[in-house]
Amino acid sequence: MDNAVILAGGAGKRMNSEKPKVLLEVLGKPMLSWVTDACEDAGIERICVVKGHAADQIDKYLDGKFETVYQPERLGTGHAVMCAREFLEANIEGNTFIACGDAPFTDFKTIHAALEFHKLSDCAVTVITAEVSNPYGYGRIVHTQSGIAIVEEKDCTEEQRRISEISSGCYWFRTKDLLSVLPKLDRNNAQNEYYLTDTVRILSAEGKKTAAFKTDNPDAVLGANDRRGLLRLNDIARIRVIEKHLSNGIEFITTDGIVISPDVTIKGGTRILPGTILSGKTEIGAGCVIGPNTRLENTVVGDGSIMDNVVANGAYVGNHVKVGPFVQLRPAARICDFASVGDFVEIKNSVIGEGTAVAHLTYVGDSDIGKNVNFGCGTVTVNYDGTNKAKCVVKDNAFIGCNTNLIAPVTIGEAAYTAAGSTVTKDIPDGALAIERSDLHIINGYAVKKLTRHLEKGKKLIGK
Amino acid sequence: MDNAVILAGGAGKRMNSEKPKVLLEVLGKPMLSWVTDACEDAGIERICVVKGHAADQIDKYLDGKFETVYQPERLGTGHAVMCAREFLEANIEGNTFIACGDAPFTDFKTIHAALEFHKLSDCAVTVITAEVSNPYGYGRIVHTQSGIAIVEEKDCTEEQRRISEISSGCYWFRTKDLLSVLPKLDRNNAQNEYYLTDTVRILSAEGKKTAAFKTDNPDAVLGANDRRGLLRLNDIARIRVIEKHLSNGIEFITTDGIVISPDVTIKGGTRILPGTILSGKTEIGAGCVIGPNTRLENTVVGDGSIMDNVVANGAYVGNHVKVGPFVQLRPAARICDFASVGDFVEIKNSVIGEGTAVAHLTYVGDSDIGKNVNFGCGTVTVNYDGTNKAKCVVKDNAFIGCNTNLIAPVTIGEAAYTAAGSTVTKDIPDGALAIERSDLHIINGYAVKKLTRHLEKGKKLIGK
Amino acid sequence: MDNAVILAGGAGKRMNSEKPKVLLEVLGKPMLSWVTDACEDAGIERICVVKGHAADQIDKYLDGKFETVYQPERLGTGHAVMCAREFLEANIEGNTFIACGDAPFTDFKTIHAALEFHKLSDCAVTVITAEVSNPYGYGRIVHTQSGIAIVEEKDCTEEQRRISEISSGCYWFRTKDLLSVLPKLDRNNAQNEYYLTDTVRILSAEGKKTAAFKTDNPDAVLGANDRRGLLRLNDIARIRVIEKHLSNGIEFITTDGIVISPDVTIKGGTRILPGTILSGKTEIGAGCVIGPNTRLENTVVGDGSIMDNVVANGAYVGNHVKVGPFVQLRPAARICDFASVGDFVEIKNSVIGEGTAVAHLTYVGDSDIGKNVNFGCGTVTVNYDGTNKAKCVVKDNAFIGCNTNLIAPVTIGEAAYTAAGSTVTKDIPDGALAIERSDLHIINGYAVKKLTRHLEKGKKLIGK
Repeated sequence: MDNAVILAGGAGKRMNSEKPKVLLEVLGKPMLSWVTDACEDAGIERICVVKGHAADQIDKYLDGKFETVYQPERLGTGHAVMCAREFLEANIEGNTFIACGDAPFTDFKTIHAALEFHKLSDCAVTVITAEVSNPYGYGRIVHTQSGIAIVEEKDCTEEQRRISEISSGCYWFRTKDLLSVLPKLDRNNAQNEYYLTDTVRILSAEGKKTAAFKTDNPDAVLGANDRRGLLRLNDIARIRVIEKHLSNGIEFITTDGIVISPDVTIKGGTRILPGTILSGKTEIGAGCVIGPNTRLENTVVGDGSIMDNVVANGAYVGNHVKVGPFVQLRPAARICDFASVGDFVEIKNSVIGEGTAVAHLTYVGDSDIGKNVNFGCGTVTVNYDGTNKAKCVVKDNAFIGCNTNLIAPVTIGEAAYTAAGSTVTKDIPDGALAIERSDLHIINGYAVKKLTRHLEKGKKLIGK
Repeated sequence: MDNAVILAGGAGKRMNSEKPKVLLEVLGKPMLSWVTDACEDAGIERICVVKGHAADQIDKYLDGKFETVYQPERLGTGHAVMCAREFLEANIEGNTFIACGDAPFTDFKTIHAALEFHKLSDCAVTVITAEVSNPYGYGRIVHTQSGIAIVEEKDCTEEQRRISEISSGCYWFRTKDLLSVLPKLDRNNAQNEYYLTDTVRILSAEGKKTAAFKTDNPDAVLGANDRRGLLRLNDIARIRVIEKHLSNGIEFITTDGIVISPDVTIKGGTRILPGTILSGKTEIGAGCVIGPNTRLENTVVGDGSIMDNVVANGAYVGNHVKVGPFVQLRPAARICDFASVGDFVEIKNSVIGEGTAVAHLTYVGDSDIGKNVNFGCGTVTVNYDGTNKAKCVVKDNAFIGCNTNLIAPVTIGEAAYTAAGSTVTKDIPDGALAIERSDLHIINGYAVKKLTRHLEKGKKLIGK
Repeated sequence: MDNAVILAGGAGKRMNSEKPKVLLEVLGKPMLSWVTDACEDAGIERICVVKGHAADQIDKYLDGKFETVYQPERLGTGHAVMCAREFLEANIEGNTFIACGDAPFTDFKTIHAALEFHKLSDCAVTVITAEVSNPYGYGRIVHTQSGIAIVEEKDCTEEQRRISEISSGCYWFRTKDLLSVLPKLDRNNAQNEYYLTDTVRILSAEGKKTAAFKTDNPDAVLGANDRRGLLRLNDIARIRVIEKHLSNGIEFITTDGIVISPDVTIKGGTRILPGTILSGKTEIGAGCVIGPNTRLENTVVGDGSIMDNVVANGAYVGNHVKVGPFVQLRPAARICDFASVGDFVEIKNSVIGEGTAVAHLTYVGDSDIGKNVNFGCGTVTVNYDGTNKAKCVVKDNAFIGCNTNLIAPVTIGEAAYTAAGSTVTKDIPDGALAIERSDLHIINGYAVKKLTRHLEKGKKLIGK
């Protein structure tokens, strides 16, 4: 069984954030999760996250999903791995992958292929390397007869400085060799830190095999030290994700303002309009129109649906549903097939049945709405009385009049009808009409006196 | 009289769309319409569309506007033109333009100038050509003593491969010559298809005059084979359309998220803010502010109006009107001069008179609203009772109270007044007040008991 | 004491605008204000704006902030300065800065450093110059033994044409020398205009010292002659402002559709989402999330607040406030700490107290709302009766039921409660319940007959 140790202790001071660096996001997903996902997708079963700065935030975010160890001081990459010694000793057979938690584009194919190479070539350590156009600042890979050496920028000869193959900072170690070499690291250097890089030199000197596995994904080495760098990572990832969806037959008129998180899925023939932000585990069906200016988080949309100027989080939308413009779907909103949700409507924790129409200026919360119901404009499910939240049930084919208040708990029967402006405080039988209304009084001549300012405005504006 | 035959049979498999390729859109306008518009603008009177894949969709889209013929099998460009034989025979005098229905940037100036050249130089066929920086994959134009030849990529000599003049795939034929040469095409080639390209060689061999007309619009040759290519066409067209409006004195702070269809007109001094999508036959007046995040389809806006976060389709907006933010104008909404439509308002199939204010949270549907009317917040025109749709009439200077329901059909008289919260079920005379209200009961000490959870929340949140 | 004279007389014909050119905006701020701000930031105490075209608009915009003089005809830059003679004569000690009102990127550091240089080198005139990659069209700077000469494009030798140091059109003059040289300018040139450039030649010929101060900000010379050029200035400024905020630790996922005016301040750790437009004197605190699609003008937001799809102008939002999605805050809306304002809500000229929730579909205008109040959905403060505007007061811990109308002037007592659908016309004592409601009538069997069309729709759509 193979291990991964992910270095996640850094603070990222130049980010001006209270978050630890690895929790900063690329396309709405923390960099740490990009790396742990890649490790898992590569088949690595045991993962240990080395936390340091703001460790409590890491714990809270991971929520027990992976083992963690605490690095009390920032004493270098070698020191970070030392902190995971117990984790490594618990499983010393097999190999250990060392990854940087702030290099989000480390990809599972590279991790997997590097392991295959590492095992086949029987190395003590395999350094994942990349060919880059500007190697300045990175450790250069020098291939020697006995294996490889990593030469830091400041130690490079003129010739070595021109080497374009660099270390990614990720390694596969034979776990036993890693455990044996860690105690040999020292801090006799300018930074006074334990460098993991030194393991390559030491293992090589001990006659063990060291090698480089060059990835064809040079972005794997990219990280960010400041907000400018983080924006650059987002830009790279954004284009790459959109390219993937273009290849799958998704239509984009322009990519402006479109941000799609890496774990979002979209089926062919769907059109994504500008200003659309899709994040989390959002899933979009085929033949939809999403956007413009639609933001969906952890939301599922079926086939052939329209989401126009919608903000949704944790919602489910069926097939051939029209939502928008200007709609909010809050958690546990479930809009069934052929339903329509029109402008200025909020749905929260409610089922909207098949073919039901909630056309305008309506709030449906904590309710269970049947099929082919019609909600008049301005309807409110009154689900909170200051002490309790309760539920409205509206059965199939009911017709709710405009500006109706449904005082929960209440049930509106099948094909029942509420008259406009009524406040409904008790259950309505199937097929009945409920009406709460006073007499309409008309007082002649009263109004004009009341409207002096209003009438003057008219005269001024349109000369009447 | 001259003809055009437009090749529109392709499926565009790599697009992952159920639409035929020529109905895919660039800036919201199907590529086929870009081409038919260019033909019409060039003065061509008879147009025949050769349909094939998903021919029913083509028929439905064209809706009888042009003649069509059906190409039952995809046997090459020559075969497509053969399918139009009857169309050509019905008008054999004059010339015939052959165009690709998926090359949207074929422009009317090129079509027209090429025809002039074609007639002047007395050619049997004139190939429209373009000089491109990367000719790879296109047929190269070789100029010979007797005219021209088109050499396909695979048949090119090393020297010919360097030719940068390519065939656009569009041709002007003397119609009689086209009809005479079509039966001479064969399928003795790798693809087993009838190539229209071969007509040039055959006509030339028969001693007829062939020539090239080089367009100064190299984009004329551009098409798209996949969603990436289609996005590229949109990008090119988007910038080009914006450049046109810049030249006309339209103001853009940034072009981000702005998509303007080619047939939209905008008068000088108007400002277009980011995230604005204008499509169809939308017309915008002078000195307006449109956007941000405004989407107008087939909508007319007068001079000096503001459209802020508006979605409109088939609406008419007069001069000096303020609409938004967050408004939907649905078909046949007509907002007259000096009116204002504020936040969270939907207008559908209604006239809003001069100087009238519909300020917030209101729905006006199927209604006729006079001048200088004031709509209170939360007003609803109740235009549907489950069986019938009916109309509300509100006369000049009326004042509609907040949360009023107007139950259609109903007429509110001039300068009449409805009290807040009333449901109005009968006509109100001019100048009268209509009020539907019960007594207000006050029950002392009742409320606090009811509000346990609410009051606790307050204590927690703000320590009171 | 030093003076500045700002040339602001131009019309900008190619802009197709009724505004004078210097009032056209870059990032929402008139170019003239970019220049006057730079002069003020550089410590210049007396500023005179030379107005010409549409001078009334300049007067209105400046609103008396600076002295102005009127240039009755456009007779060249020299003539414009002549018009300011009285302004100069009123303060002839010290130096005078001459700036172009349509060169918005003239920066205060350059102005200040050029003055230091000018005084130190005891010049009669110091020309601010810049090194540019494409000097075509600009006056080239020739350094001579006695000082400098400015050679116009058309007068350049082949060699001079290759000079990349150009005049920015901004100058520091010893005021006395400027006043002495102005009468010596003539119009013996092709344009028949008084050129300010000629002062350099004349002063030099008189044996006075002339020099160039080369700025390291080559953008200082940029202006715009048409809408395309103005868009370019916006693009440059937009990126530069975003870069500044990135350096301050502000997070951007993408810069698409983000436009931030130069005077906006944002504290570290705040996240700006796409489609966000911040203008005027807007101030954003730390750790906020602003956007997407949020437009704030002259609005203050505290720390840790969320502004999601909000349009605000002249509003104040406290700390840890959640606003949106789809909210409008109008002038003098004041949202206190921990309050929340949900979807489809408009707040105008009102205080929303600490911890108060206005969750949905509500309008609060001209009102004073206490702490921990709960507004039900669809509530309206009825603040206008056609003649008077009046105020609603809602005291701490009150609970306003859904679809309530509060008819101003009215006071709702502490922890008072209004029942859903009530119209409240008189003051409610602390802790009381107010209810306005009729009996609810239920008419069995009535509804189904009324719903023929509605029920048929259901059968068709979902087969029930």
